[in-house]
Amino acid sequence: MTGYDADVVVVGFGGAGAAAALSAAEHGVEVLVVDRDTRGGNTALSGGSLRLRPDVERAARYLSTLSLDRKAAAVHRSMLDGCRDLGGWLVRLGAEIEEMNDAFVTNTLPRVLASPYPTIAGSEALGPRFRVRGRDGQSGGDAVWELLRDAVLRHPRITVRTPAVAVELVRAGQGRVDGVRLREADGVHGVRARHGVVLACGGFEYDRRLQQNYLGFSLPAFGWPGGNDGSGVRLAQGVGAALWHMTSIASVLGYQLPGLEAAVRHSMPDLGYVYVDQECARFVDETGVDFHAIPMDLLRMNPRTFRRDRMPSFLVFDEATRAAGPIADTYLTPYRDEFRWSRDNRAEIERGWIAAADTPRELASTLGLDPDALAATVERYNAGAAAGADPLGRAAADMRPLRGPFYGVALWPCLINTQGGPRRDATCRILDPGGEPIPGLYGAGELGSMWTQLYPGAGNLTEAIVTGRTAGAAAAAALAPPAGPAPATGTVTPAVTDALAAFVADLRAGDLPETALRAARRCVLDQLGCAVFGSTLPWSALVRDYVRDEGSAPRALVWGSGLRASATLAALANATAGHAFEIDDLHAGACFHPGR
Amino acid sequence: MTGYDADVVVVGFGGAGAAAALSAAEHGVEVLVVDRDTRGGNTALSGGSLRLRPDVERAARYLSTLSLDRKAAAVHRSMLDGCRDLGGWLVRLGAEIEEMNDAFVTNTLPRVLASPYPTIAGSEALGPRFRVRGRDGQSGGDAVWELLRDAVLRHPRITVRTPAVAVELVRAGQGRVDGVRLREADGVHGVRARHGVVLACGGFEYDRRLQQNYLGFSLPAFGWPGGNDGSGVRLAQGVGAALWHMTSIASVLGYQLPGLEAAVRHSMPDLGYVYVDQECARFVDETGVDFHAIPMDLLRMNPRTFRRDRMPSFLVFDEATRAAGPIADTYLTPYRDEFRWSRDNRAEIERGWIAAADTPRELASTLGLDPDALAATVERYNAGAAAGADPLGRAAADMRPLRGPFYGVALWPCLINTQGGPRRDATCRILDPGGEPIPGLYGAGELGSMWTQLYPGAGNLTEAIVTGRTAGAAAAAALAPPAGPAPATGTVTPAVTDALAAFVADLRAGDLPETALRAARRCVLDQLGCAVFGSTLPWSALVRDYVRDEGSAPRALVWGSGLRASATLAALANATAGHAFEIDDLHAGACFHPGR
Ligand SMILES: Cc1cc2nc3c(=O)[nH]c(=O)nc-3n(C[C@H](O)[C@H](O)[C@H](O)COP(=O)(O)OP(=O)(O)OC[C@H]3O[C@@H](n4cnc5c(N)ncnc54)[C@H](O)[C@@H]3O)c2cc1C
Ligand SMILES: Cc1cc2nc3c(=O)[nH]c(=O)nc-3n(C[C@H](O)[C@H](O)[C@H](O)COP(=O)(O)OP(=O)(O)OC[C@H]3O[C@@H](n4cnc5c(N)ncnc54)[C@H](O)[C@@H]3O)c2cc1C
Repeated sequence: MTGYDADVVVVGFGGAGAAAALSAAEHGVEVLVVDRDTRGGNTALSGGSLRLRPDVERAARYLSTLSLDRKAAAVHRSMLDGCRDLGGWLVRLGAEIEEMNDAFVTNTLPRVLASPYPTIAGSEALGPRFRVRGRDGQSGGDAVWELLRDAVLRHPRITVRTPAVAVELVRAGQGRVDGVRLREADGVHGVRARHGVVLACGGFEYDRRLQQNYLGFSLPAFGWPGGNDGSGVRLAQGVGAALWHMTSIASVLGYQLPGLEAAVRHSMPDLGYVYVDQECARFVDETGVDFHAIPMDLLRMNPRTFRRDRMPSFLVFDEATRAAGPIADTYLTPYRDEFRWSRDNRAEIERGWIAAADTPRELASTLGLDPDALAATVERYNAGAAAGADPLGRAAADMRPLRGPFYGVALWPCLINTQGGPRRDATCRILDPGGEPIPGLYGAGELGSMWTQLYPGAGNLTEAIVTGRTAGAAAAAALAPPAGPAPATGTVTPAVTDALAAFVADLRAGDLPETALRAARRCVLDQLGCAVFGSTLPWSALVRDYVRDEGSAPRALVWGSGLRASATLAALANATAGHAFEIDDLHAGACFHPGR
Repeated sequence: MTGYDADVVVVGFGGAGAAAALSAAEHGVEVLVVDRDTRGGNTALSGGSLRLRPDVERAARYLSTLSLDRKAAAVHRSMLDGCRDLGGWLVRLGAEIEEMNDAFVTNTLPRVLASPYPTIAGSEALGPRFRVRGRDGQSGGDAVWELLRDAVLRHPRITVRTPAVAVELVRAGQGRVDGVRLREADGVHGVRARHGVVLACGGFEYDRRLQQNYLGFSLPAFGWPGGNDGSGVRLAQGVGAALWHMTSIASVLGYQLPGLEAAVRHSMPDLGYVYVDQECARFVDETGVDFHAIPMDLLRMNPRTFRRDRMPSFLVFDEATRAAGPIADTYLTPYRDEFRWSRDNRAEIERGWIAAADTPRELASTLGLDPDALAATVERYNAGAAAGADPLGRAAADMRPLRGPFYGVALWPCLINTQGGPRRDATCRILDPGGEPIPGLYGAGELGSMWTQLYPGAGNLTEAIVTGRTAGAAAAAALAPPAGPAPATGTVTPAVTDALAAFVADLRAGDLPETALRAARRCVLDQLGCAVFGSTLPWSALVRDYVRDEGSAPRALVWGSGLRASATLAALANATAGHAFEIDDLHAGACFHPGR
């Protein structure tokens, strides 16, 4: 790999990007991975659960029911096959893998059901959830991330450049993507990707305008602020990619807290709580609906008020639940190192993040809600809890009367991720609107994910690693086009050209330091050597014949012959000879002989 | 205008395209309009209502409430200003304009309310609805369409080409859009657009894949089958445009009937009807909610079943209503000339389009619904009607017990249109994801409309004509780049080049007919004349000096001087002189001197 260039350039160093880099490198090519940082994207913040043992046939049917995109069957199939191969690969990288037991499911509130969509048959075909065991006993996405990251960093054929933000894809004449422009600390640079580019730079969790235009609304997100900003959508659009699954998101409930850009995950330590909307009405069985499905109730546009008037809704909980444990999960958040939520929620009450009051009426006032309405709702709920009956279907075992003091906080559907992006095929080639692959361009991960509207948990991380591996292998195997000039690293305006020309015209040998002169002499000699050999090749002779036939003023020597010609014609013949066997050196960025 | 070329090429000959063409032509440039047909798109099928007298200040506030896109204020403002200018322009084209009276509102079922979103203040600021009076007394979109179409067809600076389908935009070296590739009966042709291209080719009503990827579901549509197929989204994507408002649609209720690809509009002659879902439950105040708002209730994904299980729902109506008039409006449909719905719905019952039965139970069986559930629903509704009370809030005056026989038909939310597409600014320039205009590219109409999620009636047609005018004027005013080669009209493969070269090499003057020889002589003379004058210009002298300095074999004359040089160098100097003042002629398609 010379300077910036690589065979495969991977944009994004999360799970998908890391897997793509490792897979491409396993196939023997040189890889460059770029990211704006090294925090590991959503991958490092994720729950870390993976599907490794799907029943492929049945799971394929299940995915086709979940998916409203009837044409994605080949993509589903390729992903399921990839799942079965994933465990072994992770183990070869050094992973210790554990199956998640049922306690995880039953102990978590809001609940993680066996299937988030219990009315849709077949979810068990995805197989159990697995995790990679982490160093400190924690087995979240950070464990997977550290495993992949370390494998990437120690691989001799992979280079990681950060901070480097991909700002544009570069295409060769034939439309093939063969480079990326990167914004780095010292400016924008072009990078050549001889085989291709893998886009693995995540969704648009942190671009509200893209959300507005593609989801129809915008939401708070859980990921690293400024991380996944929809770059991938824009990069792909710049080279004419088709987009797909643009309305698809994964969402769970969270809090938006003053001074924190990312949302903080809602999680309950005990059963003494309800959700109410802005009219103080309950609207969902809080404990019977899967945590990935509840946000659907909050997202809906009210067809009478024409507002999304359950954004936000409110969590109301009681004293016993306050004392039972934190109502937030801050381990897998960008703020992990800054603070932990207090065990009894007292610190957050003092900060004003949680409203506290002796009665539901007072709590309502503090939250800006109707006191009568909240009092009535709590009263009705308590009566139902005592009787073991709930109009919304909450299980009797999950209900008990709420007893003061009462606590409340605004509750938002928040983005785990967005899943839209460039459309890809089963081998992760990115397609144009006509369904044709864009040569040299590959996609992986949550950017242009296969999921449509119904996202089953543990589907994204698995997909990210599986599609990363597929995309990396496909890019590695892609035929590299003949060498050519690297993409320009900046726009040359006339004024700059003028200044450069004046500088060169004024330059005298005496102005140069001795080392530069020595290097220049070596370059000239090297080029001359290349040209002397090159002049013996048939194509050089063709050009020489043409120059001879022009019969121009005999001012300059045509190397490797006795011929003299005008300076321009001699330069044409000599340059042809110099490059004729492609043994001359090139400076990647500038495309001239650099002397190294 | 030479051959295919034009100053401005307009893609799409509906309301927006016609207005763009007229406006560009009014600004003095030559315009080419292309469409796959001449039926006038959605414009010709629309209700034809227009807003001509908004209260700009108040309406701007209203639009900003409706719009979830806070950054579109300048676009709203430009549209509202355009509305106030529109009436006069239509009158100058020969229109007779009438204000729509209240009878329209009160007599239509489902109801057209004064505001479709009564909880949002300010709708009256849009002003009353207006229509163009048609020749036959009908004042639908067809009247507007015929007015615009005829003005286009009689304009001396506008050419209309149909059938011609735009398949790709062509960009010049600098990224400027300067042409379109068209699929016509005899193949694909390139068309040069010297100033720019206006995309006015409608939404993606007839592309289910785009709907799936951008709406999350797909719906039947009312427009011409095969007409608005999302071409505009693909064309714009091909040159790197940003998209916006992709989830936005306008929808009203309709029927999907066997053998008819387009949906047929639901419309009721009397009050004896209800809507029920697939569980036979009513879910909406059928007569109190605006016809543009009801579909929202049918579109929602059920957060418990994870299905859009109100698609379809069912219209159930009674004997008196059957006899009162047709339950469909077929005037403004693609089938207007094929059939009219019978006045008593008998023909449609006989065709099996409407199910008929003596009792609700039997009707339910025929429709595949639960007999008990439908019987219970009708019974409850009838009791409520008798008592003048409805849990869904239907007005007592609008209710009366349903009396058998009973009739039923599946009811779908259907697409009036989709409103997403390339993002444009207040002057209708299409923008890239960074917010920069793509030079030479303009957008108008429902393709990339300003509406986000809440579409108020009579907003699309007005917007189409207003933005068409803006886009046409902007494209006309755009600076034409220097003349250059036209886009290639086909791929030249080596084999074709070889055959052509052999043909030319073998050609003898005697092979040519006398007329061709005469034309050729005239061409040579013409080129020589241009060159003799051109050789006196300073830039020709620069090239001549260079040629002289090369000192090549004196074989060919450099025109306008005594200099002789090698053939290639003389050709360089002479060609420069020939084109130096741009008075030489060009064949648009082939880019050589054609002799005309
Ligand atoms: C709180 C949370 C919990 C989750 N839990 C689970 C779970 O249990 N199971 C599951 O399957 N999924 C889960 N997910 C989702 C899953 O983690 C992600 O969808 C998946 O990890 C995405 O991987 P990725 O590599 O595509 O993107 P990421 O891991 O987000 O990596 C994208 C990278 O691209 C970089 N980038 C972006 N733009 C540019 C640019 N222009 N130039 C350079 N770099 C750029 C970003 O900085 C980032 O590092 C969770 C997500 C979150 C946030
Ligand atoms: C039944 C119905 C009722 C409506 N009622 C109203 C109303 O009362 N008020 C209101 O404001 N709006 C109404 N609308 C909406 C409104 O009519 C449209 O949004 C508006 O007319 C769109 O105008 P347009 O010029 O953008 O698109 P269209 O009028 O649809 O024209 C687009 C044209 O582009 C052509 N085209 C598409 N692709 C290509 C291609 N690749 N190459 C060449 N040509 C192409 C199509 O053939 C078509 O002729 C209604 C629509 C319908 C269907």
